[in-house]
Amino acid sequence: MQNQQILLASRPAGEPTVDNFRLVETPVPALADGQVLVRHHYLSLDPYMRGRMNDGKSYAQPQPLDAVMIGGTVGEVVESRHPGFAAGDAVVGMGGWQQYSVVDATQLGMLRKVDTTHIPLAAYLGAVGMPGVTAWVGLTQIIAPKEGETVVVDAASGAVGSAVGQLAKARGCRVVGLAGGADKCAYVMDELGFDACIDYRQHPDLKSMLRALKEAAPNGIDGHFENVGGLILDAVMLRMNAFGRIAFCGMIAGYNGEPIPMANPSLILVSRLKLQGFIVSEHMNLWPQALKELGTMVATGKLKYRETVAQGLAAAPEAFLGLLKGRNFGKQLVKLV
Amino acid sequence: MQNQQILLASRPAGEPTVDNFRLVETPVPALADGQVLVRHHYLSLDPYMRGRMNDGKSYAQPQPLDAVMIGGTVGEVVESRHPGFAAGDAVVGMGGWQQYSVVDATQLGMLRKVDTTHIPLAAYLGAVGMPGVTAWVGLTQIIAPKEGETVVVDAASGAVGSAVGQLAKARGCRVVGLAGGADKCAYVMDELGFDACIDYRQHPDLKSMLRALKEAAPNGIDGHFENVGGLILDAVMLRMNAFGRIAFCGMIAGYNGEPIPMANPSLILVSRLKLQGFIVSEHMNLWPQALKELGTMVATGKLKYRETVAQGLAAAPEAFLGLLKGRNFGKQLVKLV
Repeated sequence: MQNQQILLASRPAGEPTVDNFRLVETPVPALADGQVLVRHHYLSLDPYMRGRMNDGKSYAQPQPLDAVMIGGTVGEVVESRHPGFAAGDAVVGMGGWQQYSVVDATQLGMLRKVDTTHIPLAAYLGAVGMPGVTAWVGLTQIIAPKEGETVVVDAASGAVGSAVGQLAKARGCRVVGLAGGADKCAYVMDELGFDACIDYRQHPDLKSMLRALKEAAPNGIDGHFENVGGLILDAVMLRMNAFGRIAFCGMIAGYNGEPIPMANPSLILVSRLKLQGFIVSEHMNLWPQALKELGTMVATGKLKYRETVAQGLAAAPEAFLGLLKGRNFGKQLVKLV
Repeated sequence: MQNQQILLASRPAGEPTVDNFRLVETPVPALADGQVLVRHHYLSLDPYMRGRMNDGKSYAQPQPLDAVMIGGTVGEVVESRHPGFAAGDAVVGMGGWQQYSVVDATQLGMLRKVDTTHIPLAAYLGAVGMPGVTAWVGLTQIIAPKEGETVVVDAASGAVGSAVGQLAKARGCRVVGLAGGADKCAYVMDELGFDACIDYRQHPDLKSMLRALKEAAPNGIDGHFENVGGLILDAVMLRMNAFGRIAFCGMIAGYNGEPIPMANPSLILVSRLKLQGFIVSEHMNLWPQALKELGTMVATGKLKYRETVAQGLAAAPEAFLGLLKGRNFGKQLVKLV
């Protein structure tokens, strides 16, 4: 049996291109004891993958060259030599950019069985998966909003941002999103139920962004979930109330890969802010609690999400580049079967 | 009886000058019920006063024009119409830049009796006063260092910085100070017992400062107490270990009063840092615990400090301007009797 795989062929110099990836076909190896063969139904594409393509210092090891790109996957067990898994089981794991993966199921946490009775399989890559838990951890552990407070989140129509806002609404907050374009803003307000959404493309300078934030958050901002950085962060900081909290989940770099400065760090002191970065994989102890709330909300229709689905493994590189440019709408997936 | 007072005459345009202050003489009013007349022995000069001279948004109300400059004082009760105080009591309060103050002692916390048996009166303005508690709160509540971790503090020979370092040493940390000049650095290491001290004047650029920090903190930095900001903050952030904590206590502005940007805020995410600003007067519940540790350490000679003492109220403006330029060595006081 043949397995299509996408490898990292080269590291990007600046913006990544499709030439940084290479599609190969290799035979699926026979299983050893304790191993499980999984056929992937969906591959998850996520912004963190961009960081892994670089060789520089970051919180994670870089993706090795000429190896299968890492990535979250959901699928079905095809064959099992581990007593905990049987053919037909629906599973979520880190199978990578390929059609099949052979998983050593003796290693704890490599593969997790999931229930698709009330929750669609693909949701385990989004609202009930890593992006959802990311939203949950940043919101509940760092922002820790109180009822009546105002919470802002950028990339608000995305997999993480949409969950942040709905979790904050469920906690009685006023929720303001930022998204790119009128369509996304309409979705964020009308479908996801945010109180306001700012189309950041209409506010390319600080003064204009400040005015928009003042209108959308007339009582100031108590919590901010940062997926982007740059101008949005600078503006939000100026509108933060005393004792505000900012969870750092994502930060873009400038065009040359240079870091974008924070304009006014003295606001950390003036407004007694707390700014904290986090990575969801370092909070594994919180996943069960987070997944329970997220799963219940999805099953009962209280946590909504949208997906953009590319068809076939070969479409993954283009879809990934589109994600980096914000061309997706909601969670970006690749359908593999 | 006449009382000399220094008022804020005008707000500074850029750097403050002596012309922003005005010395006046007014009669001491007769006491009403519940009031106490205090003769000040020492006036405390502190960097926070610079912020109060401005009219802009900050964490505190601006100092009103033509009113007595605010400031911490220690002194002796001269006359009392409050049962809790008697003539001769040593007291600490916020008497301001003047020789005498009339205090409404019915308001809780306006005046506190202190014991000068083992602790010198002036220390209640420094190591066993607001600067000491500031050090204690930032170190124990935000940095919360573990034994063996590395803690960095700038303005290390000052009233706050010297306490931060000695409190961190008492908790088993490696402590690195930054100070301006060889004399201050020698004092920080030889007298205060820091493990290393960097003369920041010798490292005016990021590359040089990074090299100095690498040498002084070879295992990276786990906690940083920020009294200054700018280049030092940028360099420290690059050398922070994962899960590092930065307490923001003071931040300078650029020459024109413009904020100095933070060069690389994405390090907050990459290194999962926590940055938090605080103001000691918002943590009154912690003062008793802090003062107990600080008082014991001073009384037993384990917390050392140095003082620069200006003579007479008229010398206060010059001494204050010197403090802003780092001309003092340790706690800046004005002796009034």
